[in-house]
Amino acid sequence: MAEISELGEFGLIDRLTAGLNNVNTASEVAVGDDAAVLSYPDTKVLVTTDMLLENVHFDLTYVPLKHLGYKAAVVNFSDIYAMNGTPRQITVGLGVSKRFTVEHIEELYAGMRLACQIYGVDIVGGDTCASHQGLVISITCIGDAPADSVVRRSGAKDTDLICVSGDLGAAYMGLQLLEREKVASAGRKDFVPDFAGKEYLVERQLKPEARRDIVRELAAVGVKPTSMIDVSDGLSSELIHICKDSNVGCRVYEDRIPIDYQTAVMAEELNMNLVTAALNGGEDYELLFTVPLTDRDKVEKIEGVKIIGYITKPELGRVLVTRDGEGEIPLSAQGWNPLKG
Amino acid sequence: MAEISELGEFGLIDRLTAGLNNVNTASEVAVGDDAAVLSYPDTKVLVTTDMLLENVHFDLTYVPLKHLGYKAAVVNFSDIYAMNGTPRQITVGLGVSKRFTVEHIEELYAGMRLACQIYGVDIVGGDTCASHQGLVISITCIGDAPADSVVRRSGAKDTDLICVSGDLGAAYMGLQLLEREKVASAGRKDFVPDFAGKEYLVERQLKPEARRDIVRELAAVGVKPTSMIDVSDGLSSELIHICKDSNVGCRVYEDRIPIDYQTAVMAEELNMNLVTAALNGGEDYELLFTVPLTDRDKVEKIEGVKIIGYITKPELGRVLVTRDGEGEIPLSAQGWNPLKG
Repeated sequence: MAEISELGEFGLIDRLTAGLNNVNTASEVAVGDDAAVLSYPDTKVLVTTDMLLENVHFDLTYVPLKHLGYKAAVVNFSDIYAMNGTPRQITVGLGVSKRFTVEHIEELYAGMRLACQIYGVDIVGGDTCASHQGLVISITCIGDAPADSVVRRSGAKDTDLICVSGDLGAAYMGLQLLEREKVASAGRKDFVPDFAGKEYLVERQLKPEARRDIVRELAAVGVKPTSMIDVSDGLSSELIHICKDSNVGCRVYEDRIPIDYQTAVMAEELNMNLVTAALNGGEDYELLFTVPLTDRDKVEKIEGVKIIGYITKPELGRVLVTRDGEGEIPLSAQGWNPLKG
Repeated sequence: MAEISELGEFGLIDRLTAGLNNVNTASEVAVGDDAAVLSYPDTKVLVTTDMLLENVHFDLTYVPLKHLGYKAAVVNFSDIYAMNGTPRQITVGLGVSKRFTVEHIEELYAGMRLACQIYGVDIVGGDTCASHQGLVISITCIGDAPADSVVRRSGAKDTDLICVSGDLGAAYMGLQLLEREKVASAGRKDFVPDFAGKEYLVERQLKPEARRDIVRELAAVGVKPTSMIDVSDGLSSELIHICKDSNVGCRVYEDRIPIDYQTAVMAEELNMNLVTAALNGGEDYELLFTVPLTDRDKVEKIEGVKIIGYITKPELGRVLVTRDGEGEIPLSAQGWNPLKG
């Protein structure tokens, strides 16, 4: 194992970025100058940034570094897809403490490079520095979209259908499972965690994917959503974002919310409310979007997309209709509290 | 004082970004969506990122939060100017621990907003999250430059003149002074630090400026540098970057290195080697650049620019000629060791 101090900052960067080849023509000059040089003459430029801090966003006792790198990149791609765009470049800021070796950081980078390879994204720059604390990862993603394709959160209209991809709550249940096994393993060297039958939950937590496929399918069937957002803080919070920014209300149906079988079993096992997990769990990285009523047939044909309700006038509020069809619960943004953790 | 937890992430962001008005036409959609939407049809897009960690890059016992915010923004602008570009937007990633109140973060933001106002830059997005550790700041700056204006590190040619703006070593001496007063103040409540006659050093450390003026002057006199870099890690390290990337050597003269009087006095007082401080001190945020020999008259007219040497063939090495004109010392990149701190 090599000490990072032996290489120094520039040596480490050279090693981490060796063999990087840009795949996007927009990436003209990448790693190795004061700034990357990009070219976007014909499209809008999209920029998003996410910070991940050890023991706030991830726990290295059960998160492998390669998975962490993969996830750190993918959650940024997800934000670009949520604008109906294509991620093209990332810059990577890393704060690294002494307990990490060069090999550790290479593992982390291997995950980021794999994600970039799969999604066609270039690593074009970054900053690596010492941390006295834990591991700090800050990724900025740059993407693009033709001017008439950009989808914001503010375009939802009364009577639009509300759609969501995939299923919700699984990543959150995966986190509960990993935490449970962590507690069970404390002080036991021979401990083997038991994920049998729950592999999907663990994968959703540790190695999420961004829904590039859905963005492509929408384009293929000729549907441009009126609004779109990725589900990172929970369905409820994201619905409220769309309603606020679009100045509309919404009505979603509990029995339409897509939930995987493993998520339901795990909620039962942990005696947790399943709908709460699906509404507020977060880290799903699915796409939530609205389309005009006239596009119903087209979106219904897309595998993995479900219509969960519709947009209303703002005065009708933001409402969840319960399973029995009788109760109505106002949606609340449990959201994310920066000092809860 | 308000607890951040009372506001939550979205409340805090709303408060911090209230009243932000974009000044650049390229900033089409800013704070408040999955990604910012920018437009750069006619220019190259420049992207740079910097991470600042508490107790690695700054010490809040003597760095006021407003100054910290200002500096965090300005050091990113400096990277864009070093490409001969203009900074246009930043995204701000913040990790905040419980000991910070809303007012603290507003102070930090006030500094960033002031820097943005002065340099004509828009805050277009970011991420705010909890930190169990200290304060974490990660800023990404996006800028632009006409395609034929971008200056990289790799264009220096044999016989080019090596120029540097301002003076060097003052920020480093400012840091030494602040550290000395911190030690002297330990345990003394009534302690008043003594900066008399050394205000310039403190200002260079706490509130550096980016050299927009030099970039503009160069354009005004019709000089496009063959290579350029900003001096953040020390003159010696930056000269080596230019020499490596341009495949050239260099000869710089000790007696030509610009050093302020206060820097010299402070070095004397602390019994430190003045030239070492100027060569390896770092955080000067001056511009180091090379120009063809034929541009000598033009650069000599620019106030605050000094010619310190010239570019040579690579086999002649990277050399500092000592003050007496007889000694020659090979430049070494003391550089920056990520685990030294």
